[in-house]
Amino acid sequence: MDSAALLHILYLVAIVAEAMTAALAAGRRQMDWVGVYLLGCITALGGGSVRDVLLNRYPLSWVEHPIYLVLTGGAALATIAIARHMRHLRRLFLFLDAVGLVVFTVIGCNIAMGLGMPVIIVVAAGMITGCVGGVLRDILCADVPLLFRAELYATVSIVTGGIYVAGQQTGIPHEVLMGLAMATGLALRLLALRFGWSMPKFVYTDQLH
Amino acid sequence: MDSAALLHILYLVAIVAEAMTAALAAGRRQMDWVGVYLLGCITALGGGSVRDVLLNRYPLSWVEHPIYLVLTGGAALATIAIARHMRHLRRLFLFLDAVGLVVFTVIGCNIAMGLGMPVIIVVAAGMITGCVGGVLRDILCADVPLLFRAELYATVSIVTGGIYVAGQQTGIPHEVLMGLAMATGLALRLLALRFGWSMPKFVYTDQLH
Amino acid sequence: MDSAALLHILYLVAIVAEAMTAALAAGRRQMDWVGVYLLGCITALGGGSVRDVLLNRYPLSWVEHPIYLVLTGGAALATIAIARHMRHLRRLFLFLDAVGLVVFTVIGCNIAMGLGMPVIIVVAAGMITGCVGGVLRDILCADVPLLFRAELYATVSIVTGGIYVAGQQTGIPHEVLMGLAMATGLALRLLALRFGWSMPKFVYTDQLH
Repeated sequence: MDSAALLHILYLVAIVAEAMTAALAAGRRQMDWVGVYLLGCITALGGGSVRDVLLNRYPLSWVEHPIYLVLTGGAALATIAIARHMRHLRRLFLFLDAVGLVVFTVIGCNIAMGLGMPVIIVVAAGMITGCVGGVLRDILCADVPLLFRAELYATVSIVTGGIYVAGQQTGIPHEVLMGLAMATGLALRLLALRFGWSMPKFVYTDQLH
Repeated sequence: MDSAALLHILYLVAIVAEAMTAALAAGRRQMDWVGVYLLGCITALGGGSVRDVLLNRYPLSWVEHPIYLVLTGGAALATIAIARHMRHLRRLFLFLDAVGLVVFTVIGCNIAMGLGMPVIIVVAAGMITGCVGGVLRDILCADVPLLFRAELYATVSIVTGGIYVAGQQTGIPHEVLMGLAMATGLALRLLALRFGWSMPKFVYTDQLH
Repeated sequence: MDSAALLHILYLVAIVAEAMTAALAAGRRQMDWVGVYLLGCITALGGGSVRDVLLNRYPLSWVEHPIYLVLTGGAALATIAIARHMRHLRRLFLFLDAVGLVVFTVIGCNIAMGLGMPVIIVVAAGMITGCVGGVLRDILCADVPLLFRAELYATVSIVTGGIYVAGQQTGIPHEVLMGLAMATGLALRLLALRFGWSMPKFVYTDQLH
């Protein structure tokens, strides 16, 4: 199996995992089954969609492959059935969520590089792909997005994208580099979860207005 | 009058009705008159705009027909003047809102079919057209979108679009089919309101994070 | 220095000022440093991005000039260092925020006029450019957008754009007109802040649903 096929399989695992964690967020807000389905689709596919709209890249992935809407929405609905077991699967899902973050990031970087974008935009495209789905989920749940407060989430995406982009200048084979960037980002995320690492917070209490 | 003209008139009624219900939501949040105007425009025209951005279909309807911004914003402002009577018009507005939902849905399906989209995307385009305006309204009011919790709202849109799309395979004349899909969706929505039908809810209380 | 260069310098001042006020909003929500950076970029560049997506104008400014992501994000981070002094700079920032509003508005109008848009869309494009960044900031902080409730904020943008557009029909030289529109809008905003002027509010308490 070549690396493109492996990346695609990881992508499918990632959108399913993101849809399932979105379903749990929907359950916490007591959404109905249609809401669960939709929040699953939007969370799993929203990051890539926003990236493509911002970069003017059409058709969007789910317009070209409508099966993604069935896969992610179906995974969200299936989560309802197995919700009682989710507590025991907590570690598995945090792991899959971390895998999704780095896979989305690398895919987003690849797309921006394919469009000939400058380095900063490549890293930004990776981060948008990796993080915006979760932001949309939080907005639709009327929460302050976790991204802006969580353990190294966006940071992991930036580090992954940064290694991947910087490595292009070296002689490292493309597939090795991709694996290296994802492995580093994944390790950083898992260590952050394990040891509660987080970025320093900015606390400001005055009112400007 | 042919069916295209009728559909256009229904569309105008629908955007006015959506703008007026948005004005009431704005009033509940004590927005100022400019906020009322803007929330009216965004709620009435936002669903179609998001659909067109996702499908890369330009110009957007209100860019091509700026009068829509005057019509919907004006309807929102007029709502302030008649707000004291809105209580008595409650049933009328719930009815017009339901009409708007099925009209928007069919128009969204028509546009996606005109672009040669696959069946799932046609139904999705109908639902986005019908439902996203209300989601934007709820986000701008910092509420959890009603769509994800309300009586069969998104479901009605999916049923309407599903009948419309499935019927294309039969020999039913296009205009009859359109009327049939809208009548079925409208009846379903009104029955859901009357009898308090709703989709089952997913309630989940554990924290994954 | 010609007027285009002056407008560009004012634009750079405006995006820096918007990023810094966004950083304070992030601090009130105790976001981490990455969140501060991102909220700064999104607030400063979001209005122009939404305008360009709606008008199908690509590439977006920050995709063409990635340095804007560094400038605005860096300004947001720098705000953390000087936050203790921000209280004394309150007036300065309210002034710069007002400058940003009218500068963004005129730039948005210019872009829509360059695309040959009708008058209403030109004014709307100015208002979207001037106001949407702050709306995105408030949504990401899970607040009801200030725009819909604040002192003449959107109104100032509409007045500025209206004067600018209406003046095109007169013989007033373009650069004089631009200065006149911005000066009027700026004066209106500062007077509104000074005297607490605001649009009347719409207060509605019944539940439609």
